[in-house]
Amino acid sequence: MKVGIVGLGLMGGSLAKALKKYSIASKIFGFVKNKEEEKEILELGLVDELLSFEELKSRVDILILAIPVKAIISYMQDLRDIDKINENLTIIDLGSTKEEIILKIPKNIRKNFVAAHPMAGTENFGPSAAIDNLYEGNTVVLCNLEDNSKIHKDKALKLFQQIGMRIVQMDAKSHDIHASYISHLPHAISFSLANTVMNHENPKEIIALAVGGFKDMSRIAKSSANMWSDVFFQNKKNLLKALDEFEKNLKNLKELVKNDKEDELKELMKKANSLHNIL
Amino acid sequence: MKVGIVGLGLMGGSLAKALKKYSIASKIFGFVKNKEEEKEILELGLVDELLSFEELKSRVDILILAIPVKAIISYMQDLRDIDKINENLTIIDLGSTKEEIILKIPKNIRKNFVAAHPMAGTENFGPSAAIDNLYEGNTVVLCNLEDNSKIHKDKALKLFQQIGMRIVQMDAKSHDIHASYISHLPHAISFSLANTVMNHENPKEIIALAVGGFKDMSRIAKSSANMWSDVFFQNKKNLLKALDEFEKNLKNLKELVKNDKEDELKELMKKANSLHNIL
Repeated sequence: MKVGIVGLGLMGGSLAKALKKYSIASKIFGFVKNKEEEKEILELGLVDELLSFEELKSRVDILILAIPVKAIISYMQDLRDIDKINENLTIIDLGSTKEEIILKIPKNIRKNFVAAHPMAGTENFGPSAAIDNLYEGNTVVLCNLEDNSKIHKDKALKLFQQIGMRIVQMDAKSHDIHASYISHLPHAISFSLANTVMNHENPKEIIALAVGGFKDMSRIAKSSANMWSDVFFQNKKNLLKALDEFEKNLKNLKELVKNDKEDELKELMKKANSLHNIL
Repeated sequence: MKVGIVGLGLMGGSLAKALKKYSIASKIFGFVKNKEEEKEILELGLVDELLSFEELKSRVDILILAIPVKAIISYMQDLRDIDKINENLTIIDLGSTKEEIILKIPKNIRKNFVAAHPMAGTENFGPSAAIDNLYEGNTVVLCNLEDNSKIHKDKALKLFQQIGMRIVQMDAKSHDIHASYISHLPHAISFSLANTVMNHENPKEIIALAVGGFKDMSRIAKSSANMWSDVFFQNKKNLLKALDEFEKNLKNLKELVKNDKEDELKELMKKANSLHNIL
């Protein structure tokens, strides 16, 4: 099986590594828009060969779009002519939000196009961020699979199973709501926590005392501004709702501290503790 | 050298383990108020012997108060008669806030009493949370050392150096401000993030998608409600200020998302990224 990957950063590059690790593809081809990344990708040995997008789509059995959501929507337009090429081509996107992507898939490739979101990542980005165990043991959400034909659905399921992922099926709308709480809200908080310190008059003095809690909570504030601004706007409605709810919870805690409500503050903390009974 | 430790949870128990690991004490004695913990402490072998508080303070060279701030302030009153016992007794507290502690140290033990805050911890608590490498490589803040006599200052410095800690000296006021940003604010945020999910109608469905970012950011929401409500009230003024600043930063991010200000949102994220140049 030949696999083509568009975008070879954290997600695409790590997928290429996993495909190699488990000997899943006979050939891995890649395409990146940014010419400056090509040398690095080849030096890292992420793919067997870099091709043009035109060539790539005609030479593979599975085409992975491992690029930001906006770019996915733009590239899917170039796949409209798929029935002239290869109706067996399975297309899988790894975008962080799913509702808009699914709305915009051209009709003639709807059966081929599997919408996936692997719930995996690090704060690093670009080809050098690729690691060979990013996906193993993590969950991938596959959305609206009822709109795919069996051959394409099965190919996608098999691929994610082979790289060690747990599969969860969900409609795109629910995915985007859940992702806003589990991924987008934490990023918004982490960026804001980092800026609270950076806007202080002496960030270095504060940072000198940094411990595990702060380091953990500011880690994802290192994430790519280009990628995350795209995600925030794609999932704007859900993110704003999650932010409102978080603000309410934080304000509630603040009022309890302000008004010396010790028992109620302890109750609030114990409720928060209980998250870890289900996590 | 004989060391006595009051409180054998995460901080005190881990200190006992470090003292053993580096053969720093000839004997380690302990005292805990909660009788139910005694069996566990002896089974874990954290101390050589558990004594009454009266006996403990008369038999050791260094007395460590590894208990919440409120309890530290209460126990220090029982050490007023120290000059009848042993003027060479060094007392070190490990409380999370320092300003109020220092204000309340009885005059006749001021020279003996070293105010310390090891910037180390995990979300776990109680004797079973003790680990032997909690302190190694981390920073301890020692406050207002100019009020200690040389012998006590030197004993405290040596002890923390021997267990592998980096020493930072600071006045108590600055410590409490810095700690509010680096430790107390992150805890307030983590509790609130956990509750945002727990207050949702389907927390389990959301949690099913939990990834590294969310897990890291909710880890310290598991921290002890008793200890942290105490810390929040002790450092109320500084925490409320840090919370206000964080809320402003978060609101700013929210407005940029709401109003589609892409360039400004990217700038905000890039500023957050820059934290990691100094962390």
